[in-house]
Amino acid sequence: METENSRAVNADLPIGVFDSGVGGLTVVKEIINQMPNERIVYFGDTARVPYGSKSRDTVVRYSRQIVRFLLEQNVKAIAVACNTASAYAIPEIEAECPVPVIGVIRPGAKTAVEGTRNGRIGVIGTRATITSGSYKEYIREIMPGAEVFGQACPLFVPLVEEGLWEDPVTDEIARRYMASLIDRDIDTLIMGCTHYPLIRKTIGRAAGDKVLLVNPAYETARELRKLLESRSLISGHRYELGSTVPQYRFYVSDMADQFQKFANSIIKYGILAAEKIDIYNYSARPLSEGD
Amino acid sequence: METENSRAVNADLPIGVFDSGVGGLTVVKEIINQMPNERIVYFGDTARVPYGSKSRDTVVRYSRQIVRFLLEQNVKAIAVACNTASAYAIPEIEAECPVPVIGVIRPGAKTAVEGTRNGRIGVIGTRATITSGSYKEYIREIMPGAEVFGQACPLFVPLVEEGLWEDPVTDEIARRYMASLIDRDIDTLIMGCTHYPLIRKTIGRAAGDKVLLVNPAYETARELRKLLESRSLISGHRYELGSTVPQYRFYVSDMADQFQKFANSIIKYGILAAEKIDIYNYSARPLSEGD
Repeated sequence: METENSRAVNADLPIGVFDSGVGGLTVVKEIINQMPNERIVYFGDTARVPYGSKSRDTVVRYSRQIVRFLLEQNVKAIAVACNTASAYAIPEIEAECPVPVIGVIRPGAKTAVEGTRNGRIGVIGTRATITSGSYKEYIREIMPGAEVFGQACPLFVPLVEEGLWEDPVTDEIARRYMASLIDRDIDTLIMGCTHYPLIRKTIGRAAGDKVLLVNPAYETARELRKLLESRSLISGHRYELGSTVPQYRFYVSDMADQFQKFANSIIKYGILAAEKIDIYNYSARPLSEGD
Repeated sequence: METENSRAVNADLPIGVFDSGVGGLTVVKEIINQMPNERIVYFGDTARVPYGSKSRDTVVRYSRQIVRFLLEQNVKAIAVACNTASAYAIPEIEAECPVPVIGVIRPGAKTAVEGTRNGRIGVIGTRATITSGSYKEYIREIMPGAEVFGQACPLFVPLVEEGLWEDPVTDEIARRYMASLIDRDIDTLIMGCTHYPLIRKTIGRAAGDKVLLVNPAYETARELRKLLESRSLISGHRYELGSTVPQYRFYVSDMADQFQKFANSIIKYGILAAEKIDIYNYSARPLSEGD
């Protein structure tokens, strides 16, 4: 059934992806790996990063502005590649948005449930993601008896952004964050922030060999693929380097040069340019209220 | 001479103070110590914190919105209690604002010049503050032969906000940041970020006994006092606890509860409430262009 919000979408349109900053590029990387024929429009909210220490209301407002921008780019679907935005804004965005929306939390929860043997699952993330209780909620929907233990790890993002991916300081901080989760005898740990897979080895050392690490980025790209397939929205186009239609476009709200440098360290595909746009020009009101 | 921007200001009006978040409270604390009869209106931009990793353009836009809010509160002067905003936005704000404006950098530079014996001064701060070169510029204005060495310390703010004020991890990070400055034989070190005085002991240990630590917050309050005295704007009012006109008012753009908790750990004066306001309602255009 068509709603009044429906738009004419087709398989050739790009996928929209957004994050508070650079972390969502780990999701982009998975989408590129799993769906090499897709075009992507990425937005990183570098003028207001990080989201993880902000309130639900603020994160919802920011997310609505970004979704408006992505819809203006005529995307066929939107991946919310930020755990905090997924935790806080998915209900509003899903209900209001005329194209399908996928977050990282539901796919991450599903993988954790498939992986656990003892039903004891740990979740690490920003303070906002942990406070929201979203992972617990989705996990319990699929596995009502699961025990879910959350641990906020606010220092991981700055440590990753400072490049201390393999460093005794990051090991020490990881050891402290993991201590309470190890005490709870978890056998599965969701890396509930898009930066964390970049220090996967450190987290793995601190959590111990017996704990399965779940990277929601991987599963999110898989779910996105299934979603696009079910709606016949998978692109069959083959892009050549130097094509006149650039396959990947990156936008930020600030610091385009620094974004580009970091992005190129994550995605081994040459990102030619990131463009700064003025996100304040987009309304933060509910999408259903128009611009 | 009166300009068309002048307003009727009098000694009973409050002082406006702003910062990207909670750090500026170290400046508020000094103002309270040195001028106990003054009223203060504080704004912390917790919806967009931190400023230290953002661009000049973005910081100027945010600062203009905040100054508009403070002028609406009818302040008699404005203290920019944030090194990044002082480095990037003071020139614009000073030129546009109808009430006197003071930043933290010029007073910090002055104290460092008074304190140094060998003319070799270190500056630590956010990436933005160090990149701006503002401390160096002001120091060289007063002491043209000074050698100034900057070191960005991006992990200090998250470590302070996580409460690791006395911790081996913070010691280790401080030791790394200080290494290059010690090599340059500095005898004076400016703590060029309002969070840093909270880990003064750690910074002192890492810098060594022979290095004089400069806290610009102290000198900023002194300069502000001189400025108000020179314009006969010092308040003679004595406030009683429970007065109907609250002496200190705190506003934030997000997370009022968390701000209040942190604020009470810095200022040992009971902060009764912090109020969230919608900073997006204030224009980011030059102040001279009206609202």
